[in-house]
Amino acid sequence: MTALEHRRKDTVKITGDGIKAIFEPASVAVVGASQRPGSVGRAVFKNLLEGDFSGVLYPVNVKGGSVCGVAAYRNLAEIPGPVELTVIIVPAPLVAGVAREAGEKGSRGIIVISAGFREVGKSGRAMEEELTAVCREYGISLVGPNCLGAINTDAAFGLNASFARRPPLAGNIGFISQSGALCTAVLDYAARKNIGFSKFISVGNKADIDELALLKYLHDDPQTRVIMMYVEDLRHGFSFIEAVREITGGSRHTPIIAVKSGRTAAGAAAVSSHTGSLAGSEAIYDAIFHQSGIYRAQTIGHLFDYAIAFATQPLPRSNRVAIITNAGGPGIIATDITMNVGLTLAEFAPETEEVLAAALPSTANIHNPVDVIGDAGVDRYKAAFEAVLRDENVDGVIFILTPQSMTDIYATAQIIPDLAKRSGKPVLTSFMGEMDVRDAIDFLELNHMPHYHFPEMAARAMGAMYKHARWINRQHLIELKISPDRRLARELIEAALDSGKTYLGEVEGNEILAAYGFPVLPARLAATPEEAAAAVREFGRTVFKIVSPQVVHKSDLGGVRIGIETEEEARAAFTDIVNTVRENAPQAEIEGVYVQKMAPKGVEVILGINRYKTFGPLLMFGLGGIFVEIFNDVTFRLAPIRHNAARAMIRSTKAYPMLNGARGEEPCDTNELEFCLTLLSALAVDNPEIAELDINPLIVHPDGQGCSVADCRILLDLERMK
Amino acid sequence: MTALEHRRKDTVKITGDGIKAIFEPASVAVVGASQRPGSVGRAVFKNLLEGDFSGVLYPVNVKGGSVCGVAAYRNLAEIPGPVELTVIIVPAPLVAGVAREAGEKGSRGIIVISAGFREVGKSGRAMEEELTAVCREYGISLVGPNCLGAINTDAAFGLNASFARRPPLAGNIGFISQSGALCTAVLDYAARKNIGFSKFISVGNKADIDELALLKYLHDDPQTRVIMMYVEDLRHGFSFIEAVREITGGSRHTPIIAVKSGRTAAGAAAVSSHTGSLAGSEAIYDAIFHQSGIYRAQTIGHLFDYAIAFATQPLPRSNRVAIITNAGGPGIIATDITMNVGLTLAEFAPETEEVLAAALPSTANIHNPVDVIGDAGVDRYKAAFEAVLRDENVDGVIFILTPQSMTDIYATAQIIPDLAKRSGKPVLTSFMGEMDVRDAIDFLELNHMPHYHFPEMAARAMGAMYKHARWINRQHLIELKISPDRRLARELIEAALDSGKTYLGEVEGNEILAAYGFPVLPARLAATPEEAAAAVREFGRTVFKIVSPQVVHKSDLGGVRIGIETEEEARAAFTDIVNTVRENAPQAEIEGVYVQKMAPKGVEVILGINRYKTFGPLLMFGLGGIFVEIFNDVTFRLAPIRHNAARAMIRSTKAYPMLNGARGEEPCDTNELEFCLTLLSALAVDNPEIAELDINPLIVHPDGQGCSVADCRILLDLERMK
Repeated sequence: MTALEHRRKDTVKITGDGIKAIFEPASVAVVGASQRPGSVGRAVFKNLLEGDFSGVLYPVNVKGGSVCGVAAYRNLAEIPGPVELTVIIVPAPLVAGVAREAGEKGSRGIIVISAGFREVGKSGRAMEEELTAVCREYGISLVGPNCLGAINTDAAFGLNASFARRPPLAGNIGFISQSGALCTAVLDYAARKNIGFSKFISVGNKADIDELALLKYLHDDPQTRVIMMYVEDLRHGFSFIEAVREITGGSRHTPIIAVKSGRTAAGAAAVSSHTGSLAGSEAIYDAIFHQSGIYRAQTIGHLFDYAIAFATQPLPRSNRVAIITNAGGPGIIATDITMNVGLTLAEFAPETEEVLAAALPSTANIHNPVDVIGDAGVDRYKAAFEAVLRDENVDGVIFILTPQSMTDIYATAQIIPDLAKRSGKPVLTSFMGEMDVRDAIDFLELNHMPHYHFPEMAARAMGAMYKHARWINRQHLIELKISPDRRLARELIEAALDSGKTYLGEVEGNEILAAYGFPVLPARLAATPEEAAAAVREFGRTVFKIVSPQVVHKSDLGGVRIGIETEEEARAAFTDIVNTVRENAPQAEIEGVYVQKMAPKGVEVILGINRYKTFGPLLMFGLGGIFVEIFNDVTFRLAPIRHNAARAMIRSTKAYPMLNGARGEEPCDTNELEFCLTLLSALAVDNPEIAELDINPLIVHPDGQGCSVADCRILLDLERMK
Repeated sequence: MTALEHRRKDTVKITGDGIKAIFEPASVAVVGASQRPGSVGRAVFKNLLEGDFSGVLYPVNVKGGSVCGVAAYRNLAEIPGPVELTVIIVPAPLVAGVAREAGEKGSRGIIVISAGFREVGKSGRAMEEELTAVCREYGISLVGPNCLGAINTDAAFGLNASFARRPPLAGNIGFISQSGALCTAVLDYAARKNIGFSKFISVGNKADIDELALLKYLHDDPQTRVIMMYVEDLRHGFSFIEAVREITGGSRHTPIIAVKSGRTAAGAAAVSSHTGSLAGSEAIYDAIFHQSGIYRAQTIGHLFDYAIAFATQPLPRSNRVAIITNAGGPGIIATDITMNVGLTLAEFAPETEEVLAAALPSTANIHNPVDVIGDAGVDRYKAAFEAVLRDENVDGVIFILTPQSMTDIYATAQIIPDLAKRSGKPVLTSFMGEMDVRDAIDFLELNHMPHYHFPEMAARAMGAMYKHARWINRQHLIELKISPDRRLARELIEAALDSGKTYLGEVEGNEILAAYGFPVLPARLAATPEEAAAAVREFGRTVFKIVSPQVVHKSDLGGVRIGIETEEEARAAFTDIVNTVRENAPQAEIEGVYVQKMAPKGVEVILGINRYKTFGPLLMFGLGGIFVEIFNDVTFRLAPIRHNAARAMIRSTKAYPMLNGARGEEPCDTNELEFCLTLLSALAVDNPEIAELDINPLIVHPDGQGCSVADCRILLDLERMK
């Protein structure tokens, strides 16, 4: 299976067309609609009715009658017109049957709100599989089961196919949630904050439609400017990254902000390698988000804080922020966080400071952060705001107000939206307090000016916007050309598997790495002291290592000698090593001694692969020894990676300065190291039998002098291919 | 000056008595009270009048007339009765004069609200000094100038001597703020969150009363259970730590939570040593907060989040938390943060799980986090809450509710306060959303149950409470006995200063360190090849280092040789070193070659001192080489430190495992290292002339084998003594 074939296996099952039927239907039937007060069937139908739906609604109830004053049909077949979307709220065992009727009726989309499927165990899982089979048979797109429903606030549709207590305001945030309960809380919170949504969807068990399909749909949706996502697990690996990268980083980009919670089964996979023990589900998700350009928020609160900025404001062109405040303290707090999140305080142009000096009293601070002083009225705020917005050295503004005795809170709010919009720069506001500033905050929020209770959150949000701006404007390095001998590597792996070998030590491992073009040191397996002496004659200064399938930690058993230079030393060392290991591990079958040319000096790094079922191969990079063991200073990416990612992996370790000539040392050959990471990626993608691989260490020599693989091991496992 | 004398210099100037006059006066005069609408003078008097003050109020206005219906006096002298507290709101140049009148009138306390003092520059600073002199003359305690005022909500006093727009609710949080503007915002925010305060004070320029005096007063105040503090700078060093440690960690402890913002001048002090360049104001404040037991919040939002928990809930006995939720997602989020902040999920006793199994439906999760399922009514929540509260394996509970169709939000809130209170365990709540849950949140807050919009903040607050519980229950190690030869060290330092030397290299440095009992290696300054040979004969294996006041980086100029063992080698090395340095640095005056016994193997660490004007000596500890240079892996404490702190310094570095036998190495002699840190502390405190000191490296040998000072330098500076 080639990389491409392997990748194709991991693709999405849904067609974009079906999602249109979910969000943009001309006709909706609600099966299980009910007149009974407090029932979900009534709540859903009532929401649809009150949502000002632009098409036709049909309640369906086995008993007939009416729901909310609308005559009910006994089943889908009875409905005279077409039904594009069917919403199902009947007991789980009946759902698949209703889905079949919907298929017969020509529905292109189904939302199953009913619970009692995979989440309740084995019997539920069987029902869910039956439901999915029916949908596949009829080519129906399915949301759920076990979800809150879907909402499209676009006035052209006005669809609220959910049992949410409270319909959302219209806006331009798309929201995808893997937790239905969280949806209700989010809608409630958003209402208070005047936050509007374009589309709002609870994905439930994700039997069919999942995040990836929705992200694509929302990216194409003209109403959606930013996507908020609550995720508990993802079920795609690199295909997700590849598709989402187009969404977050394409020419017409949609920022995505996600909260991911919980730990997955992937983290619990048994691991025997270094890479494996360091990785785990958090590393995988961090890698996926990072590579996809998804901004990961730590809490639901932050999710909102970032989304309202992205939803309404242009991105900053660079990182120079102006702060305007009428009180020192909050200005200092905002400054601190501004610096912490990678932004910087703008240095104003002389003209700006002139204007500020003329408009503000002498006690004011005309440098950044601008302090208009506690007794500032609207005029002073306006003059300062205009001046800094006009300054070419300012990329964004944080506008802080504290309610003091002279402050005209509401009037100050009123000057902000127009000036902000005309400037083309992002403006974030913080009117501190709650009761006295309430009207002004409402005004700001309803006029699409992001507001934060505390200025530090405004600074954090500005930081997120700048990070996204950097992502979409990143440079793409020219790809490195590699020419692995794939056929040879394949033969070696298959030969090992045919002979029942799954753990490959340095001898076989180096052959595979060499086939891919890794800089493997010249070496030979010596079976006798004479063969060892011959190898030393050829290689010069060498390392001797015992070769035995039973011996993994060679040094611990006295199976390693370094610096063997003469034939005499070689004969003695061979005998000594073999005898020592025999003594320390009598059960070990000794295949010989691996005589390897000693690598020149350099910095030791570790390269690794750990393969996960759903996600595929995760690549690891870190500096060797204490850096990995004590500081856990490693980075991960899902394979395949490009040149950009290879470089980023190396530079994002804290110990990178060690490779870059810290402490007066020569810089190391990081170009060759990038090349090795590219090879590692190809090796991982091409050979799904490689479950785990450690190159530990790879020695990186001074610049221009390449790298050397000094030790490696590979674990083959057919199970983890899938 | 001895350590004690030195410490005495750095004491607090205020007497507790004066603060009583500020918060608990029987009579208050407001000088500058005014009838003019919108004036601060009117706002302050109106606040006092409406605050239900229990004593007598006197408005004072040069024009006489009345203020808010109360007849005004033209000056303080006219007032018939005594005036315990005088509030001053007249222009800055008049303030000192009014203060004098207040003194004559017998006032014990003054609050100066007027601005225009130190914060506006030189002329203001002079007026502030005059004001302080008057207060000192009359023994008056002074709040401000340039502040919002002070509030005491205790009904026995009912004092609101501030121009706050909105009076606070009564409660048990004491609040101290260095920013007046922030006060207004905080009061407004607190009103919305139903948060009550015991005392509320804006310290302004802190000309007299500062945080430390207030902390002591609030600690003694029966109304205050927790203190919130916004700090921009502190003006005490170890005396602050010593006093505050009694407050936060004594038998009757008051937790303190602080936000510190801004960078201080201390950070900009010129530094030439390693320690100096790594330290800086953030390191100082972190050290002060850490050593004082003050919990440092990152944002104003967090300050509130922590304070409401401390103000109303008992501390958890240990770190085992139970989570109850009616929705999976929020439960998972809370779990993630719970684990991240050092807490753990409680494992329930079998009885608890039995009770839960009986009370909850089969689909519920009866393990922690308990999921009572979306359709849970009050009964299920109550059964689960009672069961986990009763479980001895549970130290605290996070109670989460999401508003779902069947949820009885208000009734569920009603069960919480009583059960929580009776359990004696901390309970934090998160009713997610905003509008639908508003009434329930108000109920919880008014009934002293801390509430958080998002469960992750509840988890964070629980983490803070547990951290404080650990602080107050910490063990105190037995102090290490040291016996430095203080007189000898003093003589050496004074001799150096007398000869005009301020930079002391290894030769003089080692003598001072040896006097204190540091494990200095045997060494001798050799002036000739023969003297060098004689030293080698005595010491065995040695290191040779050039000694020249002009040569700081000895190795760079070829001034170091290691492993000199024979007399012959010694003669050659001496000549070689001297010649090489002469060639590389012709201007260097060479005093000779320092011949030092080579230290046995060990781990290299750095010990350092950097002295700051206000704060005194800051001690540094870190592992040497890359750990300090690349990872910045160092810890700081203000001297003096005790055994506890010495141990904590060592253990809190990330690289500590390197000292503790990581990677199969022998553990190092950390007992001796603790001893060295104790010596360092004494050296720093006893000798204020030492501005900077580096011991780099100190070599820590295997356990039982001690340490060796391998290099050091000292910078003397009389200026930094103060």
